[in-house]
Amino acid sequence: MKAAEPIQDFYPPEFSHCYGCGRLNDHGLQIESRWDGEQAIALFTPEPHHIAVPGFVYGGLIASLIDCHAMATAAAASYAAEGRAPGSLPDFRFVTASLNIDFLAPTPLGEILELQARPAETGRRKVVVAVELWAADQLRVRGQAVAVRMPDTMEQPPG
Amino acid sequence: MKAAEPIQDFYPPEFSHCYGCGRLNDHGLQIESRWDGEQAIALFTPEPHHIAVPGFVYGGLIASLIDCHAMATAAAASYAAEGRAPGSLPDFRFVTASLNIDFLAPTPLGEILELQARPAETGRRKVVVAVELWAADQLRVRGQAVAVRMPDTMEQPPG
Repeated sequence: MKAAEPIQDFYPPEFSHCYGCGRLNDHGLQIESRWDGEQAIALFTPEPHHIAVPGFVYGGLIASLIDCHAMATAAAASYAAEGRAPGSLPDFRFVTASLNIDFLAPTPLGEILELQARPAETGRRKVVVAVELWAADQLRVRGQAVAVRMPDTMEQPPG
Repeated sequence: MKAAEPIQDFYPPEFSHCYGCGRLNDHGLQIESRWDGEQAIALFTPEPHHIAVPGFVYGGLIASLIDCHAMATAAAASYAAEGRAPGSLPDFRFVTASLNIDFLAPTPLGEILELQARPAETGRRKVVVAVELWAADQLRVRGQAVAVRMPDTMEQPPG
């Protein structure tokens, strides 16, 4: 995979409707994560309505960015760990088991946000991803997500 | 405050633009939290585009709901701790210092989500809030948010 290709482009179509990162969700954020072999980078510019208090980015948006970017990083790191090409079968489908976020400094609106994610632990069924969010050359938010392989119960919609 | 009045209705206008819970943000989620003296309840029905994988709610939306609902709970609990009417001055303006979320079970789309939040620790500058998210009579997500009084640096937009 070239660094220019978003990890999300390798998700199968049925997993590409995610509000955060689904390329097929026209209402969503369409987060794109790019893997360079060691870490994944995502750039995102919030809309003016993604506001918390005047001048600052909404924390729930930041949580969303960290969540999707971490899941993409988990998939990319898993392919890398097995020496396989991203998107090759069997594919990796991760869901978020837990999300821990520390808001270290307010994140200004009107800046490009840069998310940097690295796998801290890459197991077969569980990947722990550490994420940093930078804006205007300052570390603003630190996150950690635990990604687990999607349970069979999520393979089909409930009901 | 009657239980029927959302806590967010007492936020001053300049703090009512939040994407998650600002009544003045037409693009936002407009989360409403109601305090009954011991806990706060918020009901929210996700839109079809708030999807993770087919049939299930997006985790970033859930993080957003927990975040805003916890901050409202922190404000309501702080007024209660001082025996003051919500909205009376000086007002409480909390921001999220940290957010920890455990996704215990997938949350089905198409259901009303019920968020139940209780203050676990109510200090003058820091309130810890425990949140549960229920859907279809099952506990789906557990969250904890640390709310801190808003720093002076956020009183004015950066720039």
